[in-house]
Amino acid sequence: HISATPLHPKVREAITDYVQRDGFGNPLSQHRIGDSAVEALEDARAKVAQLINAKPQEIVFTSGGTESNNHAIKGVAFAKAKKGKHIVSTSIEHQSVARTLRVLMKMGYQVTAVPVDKYGLVNPADVERAIQEDTVLISIMHANNEIGTIQPISAIGRIAKERNVLLHTDAVASGGNIPIDVEELGVDLLSIAANQFYGPSGVGALYIRQKTAIVPLIDGGTQESNRRAGTQNMLGIIGMGKAAELARLEMPQRTQHLLMLKKAMIERLKTIDEVYINGHPDMCLPGLLSFSVEYV
Amino acid sequence: HISATPLHPKVREAITDYVQRDGFGNPLSQHRIGDSAVEALEDARAKVAQLINAKPQEIVFTSGGTESNNHAIKGVAFAKAKKGKHIVSTSIEHQSVARTLRVLMKMGYQVTAVPVDKYGLVNPADVERAIQEDTVLISIMHANNEIGTIQPISAIGRIAKERNVLLHTDAVASGGNIPIDVEELGVDLLSIAANQFYGPSGVGALYIRQKTAIVPLIDGGTQESNRRAGTQNMLGIIGMGKAAELARLEMPQRTQHLLMLKKAMIERLKTIDEVYINGHPDMCLPGLLSFSVEYV
Repeated sequence: HISATPLHPKVREAITDYVQRDGFGNPLSQHRIGDSAVEALEDARAKVAQLINAKPQEIVFTSGGTESNNHAIKGVAFAKAKKGKHIVSTSIEHQSVARTLRVLMKMGYQVTAVPVDKYGLVNPADVERAIQEDTVLISIMHANNEIGTIQPISAIGRIAKERNVLLHTDAVASGGNIPIDVEELGVDLLSIAANQFYGPSGVGALYIRQKTAIVPLIDGGTQESNRRAGTQNMLGIIGMGKAAELARLEMPQRTQHLLMLKKAMIERLKTIDEVYINGHPDMCLPGLLSFSVEYV
Repeated sequence: HISATPLHPKVREAITDYVQRDGFGNPLSQHRIGDSAVEALEDARAKVAQLINAKPQEIVFTSGGTESNNHAIKGVAFAKAKKGKHIVSTSIEHQSVARTLRVLMKMGYQVTAVPVDKYGLVNPADVERAIQEDTVLISIMHANNEIGTIQPISAIGRIAKERNVLLHTDAVASGGNIPIDVEELGVDLLSIAANQFYGPSGVGALYIRQKTAIVPLIDGGTQESNRRAGTQNMLGIIGMGKAAELARLEMPQRTQHLLMLKKAMIERLKTIDEVYINGHPDMCLPGLLSFSVEYV
């Protein structure tokens, strides 16, 4: 389920209903079939916004977490190239962030990768020290997809705001799995993907705080308020909207269930010699338990 | 249907079947559910390849025609930046090409836009004259999405090959609607979108001829043979595969039907004063008829 969750039965139902309906229009079309597509699109957008306490107009639908991360990082790097070419990140980012940063480095950008402690935790003071005059972006993941450690993004958000640097967080592993509030985190950009919370694969969203300086990754039509061109993936977006609604409603029960399973597994693992549990004991995703087996 | 075709009943069926099945895996996962996703993915890829006479490994799934065009143009421009920064295109490209070129111009690239005649036709001799020492790419649409005119891509392909310049064609309007053979056209890159031939929106493909120098638009994981990162949009891809298969099989009947409708409409339009038919009388998409009404 870290790689991809299955579809929630109600998400299957929502997608099947939409496929079977007549309304398969292009939201840009100026006729009734187009209007019906706009309605479904905006309904899904409102649900995704609600999941992370954003405004609907701050949600841009993408083809998934990887595109969201590329868009956030390249979009700010290109938009702010004249101000500076320095980015602060960490040594444990997902490859959709790490490789994107490597591509930018080949284009003349400079990246400082802040280290993590034995639990995989970033120290906000290290982030602050890494900020330079020409730093235009901080990109630090919300929760790690391999060990589950949740970073102190709110503390980093306060630093970013104080130093007037944009903050992006890759919340693909955490989105829909733990409560996320973009105001509380103090982020300008946040990536999520539907297939991490029982929605379909190939659809995600990028939260872009209003007035954030960013250029599109994909240029062309006026879709998504000129921030992401191309006719929307209606089936995926409808599935993501439903999955976001369910994640919000079911999160307390899901978390309780997962923590029970996790606790039981930890107790058993602790009885085995030379098995070591990875990640932070408390600041960790409820549905992720990573361990190492010595000599393997 | 130029903006977006509805879903073919058999495409609806294919998507519904997949949604209802258990097999909703991530093709990268090393277990049985992942394997079943790989099978569905590669089956769809083979069908899309067959539609345009490409090899399956030359097909990269994208989020639609707009992404395919961005990927082709930016991907070659960035990969070949050291060789040169000049691109040849036309004055009538879709905005996913035109705006992408404008973004590149802001980054220091130079673009020559070849004009068209009164039918919207490009003259291959003009393309040849526009090629410079530092030209790295020619991007000319296969068929225009507003007037339907089909360009002489094969002739341009011979020029591109002779002058050792890569050739991309935006075949979003034509793909699945008229026969396309990447070998006959002599293109290195070709964009198509499923929602132009009764498949879902938000999914497309970029044909990349083997050994073509191009970098990804979306960096991250190893999906699509390292050419396009991010977990694939399985629902969309399954729909596109089915739609490609149907387009290939039904193309003769569809064309015959559309040409009959078009001919009937032209005959009636011709009886009205001050109505003018746009586009080329023969080199035109069967399902597109554009006309102007004087004073409107």
